[in-house]
Amino acid sequence: MRIGIDVGGTSMTAALVGDDKQLYFKQRSVTAGVKDEATLISTLITTVDRVITEGNVDLSKVSSIGIGVPGSTNIETGTAVSAGNLPVHNTCFKKILEDKYGLLTYLDNDANCAAWGEFCEGHGKGVQNLVMVTLGTGIGGGIVIDGKIYHGVANHAGELGHQVIDIHGKRCACGRVGCWETVASTRALTNRVAQEVAAVPYGIMAEVVKENGGKVDGRTLFTALKRDDMVAKDIFDEYIETLAIGVANIIECFRPELLVIGGGISKEGDTILLPLREAVDDNQCRIECSMLGDNAGIIGAALLDLSRK
Amino acid sequence: MRIGIDVGGTSMTAALVGDDKQLYFKQRSVTAGVKDEATLISTLITTVDRVITEGNVDLSKVSSIGIGVPGSTNIETGTAVSAGNLPVHNTCFKKILEDKYGLLTYLDNDANCAAWGEFCEGHGKGVQNLVMVTLGTGIGGGIVIDGKIYHGVANHAGELGHQVIDIHGKRCACGRVGCWETVASTRALTNRVAQEVAAVPYGIMAEVVKENGGKVDGRTLFTALKRDDMVAKDIFDEYIETLAIGVANIIECFRPELLVIGGGISKEGDTILLPLREAVDDNQCRIECSMLGDNAGIIGAALLDLSRK
Repeated sequence: MRIGIDVGGTSMTAALVGDDKQLYFKQRSVTAGVKDEATLISTLITTVDRVITEGNVDLSKVSSIGIGVPGSTNIETGTAVSAGNLPVHNTCFKKILEDKYGLLTYLDNDANCAAWGEFCEGHGKGVQNLVMVTLGTGIGGGIVIDGKIYHGVANHAGELGHQVIDIHGKRCACGRVGCWETVASTRALTNRVAQEVAAVPYGIMAEVVKENGGKVDGRTLFTALKRDDMVAKDIFDEYIETLAIGVANIIECFRPELLVIGGGISKEGDTILLPLREAVDDNQCRIECSMLGDNAGIIGAALLDLSRK
Repeated sequence: MRIGIDVGGTSMTAALVGDDKQLYFKQRSVTAGVKDEATLISTLITTVDRVITEGNVDLSKVSSIGIGVPGSTNIETGTAVSAGNLPVHNTCFKKILEDKYGLLTYLDNDANCAAWGEFCEGHGKGVQNLVMVTLGTGIGGGIVIDGKIYHGVANHAGELGHQVIDIHGKRCACGRVGCWETVASTRALTNRVAQEVAAVPYGIMAEVVKENGGKVDGRTLFTALKRDDMVAKDIFDEYIETLAIGVANIIECFRPELLVIGGGISKEGDTILLPLREAVDDNQCRIECSMLGDNAGIIGAALLDLSRK
């Protein structure tokens, strides 16, 4: 068996992954609010310890540990170089975990881990090439080519959210204008909904927000859609169009067998998938929502040793 | 030694390529106006025959033939499936050439051959990953990953000209709106120049056109630039900006070690390269103009056997 760890800006999760590549025992800790590297590392160790003790794990039966982290990484040294929302500064998780547990440890970018998980145990079983697009605060990407994670120079391939699709669009945090993630990330979608509700504080969508304690979140639009709100439908249709443009661009460039949509929004399944497939209108590339959901990154991290062969 | 063939809509070229990967003997035939498959095939055979007879080639010393063709290809069967500007219809060049010359024959897309040539004998020597962007009537792409041509499903990867960069832009022949090639192909550039000269039929650029018998071609803008024409400078600056957007998008997705600009315009060298590098503003990916120029496709085709190992 293996141990997989997925570190994010809100929480981190560690789990046992069996030789059957299934996830068996999962422990979660909060990382939001963790301001220094030392606290982050001790949270990590506590979480992994919990998996080991509460899961009654015999460490001699664990073959390796894999850890996925956001931001810039060095996969050779197993280092989290930097991340926008986590206190890592050339933090060598590989050495930390190897010293602590005496187990070979692999590290990669979280989007790569999710793509690798989906390749090994999700919709990607049996394909040779896939691209996974992770929709969240931004848009991340993981690329598997010829059965291996494709990293590019300095592990920076797959910055799919920073393809410009609208040269007259909004300024992105990266400095460019019209990046895909300024309009197609779930944050962009939630912002669009919030803007609408602020402008028109009545109707179905405003009701949904009221029921949610006045908060607009990733579910607001989809709840309003289920109540046949026409405003929600318009926003959703427009969102799918912009999502489809970037997806089609990725397909034109990589022409993978499979493109997987990940991130919280992928739980909406066919609600997203059916109109997206129609808008992309491509009969060569299969488009799916993540099969493993939140577990893709953990399973992918646990199985990282298989991508280094 | 090997024989390489580059088939295009205007002309085809066949040549001997030595074991030192240098091009030794080149023969060119016109393909513009060839309307049927039989004539195309006989032109091909005549051209290769000329290389063999006039080059005094001992066929027993030739290890293989490689052929690059535009459009859709099947590299397993060695077939030119279809092409916009050539009379090929599932034309199995592999079988035709193997039957005629008794030599193992490989076929690939022309943009892939150019990228492979540049990888083997051009700027790509020593890198593992590169993307070649070929600017012409449209924008083609060839991708080398981990020292192999990356094909994607049905050999359709690398349609880089059909990434949408301007969702409010012009309708492309492919049906999508705002494809990169509608603004950044050399045809788009020439059209822009022609439009300007038609609107303002005096000044330096109009003079250049007059000297060229009233014809706007790929050199018009660059000749006017050399004469310090401010209008030409404005058009050129705008062109470089749109070229840079697509190049940066490709870098964000693939993050290759090297991006090579090919096509006739690449002969302008630093005139293109210096402002393009400045506009892309990336310190990880080297950007170069093709080192092999028109010969990249022929050398790459000749060396296709090396990409199949």
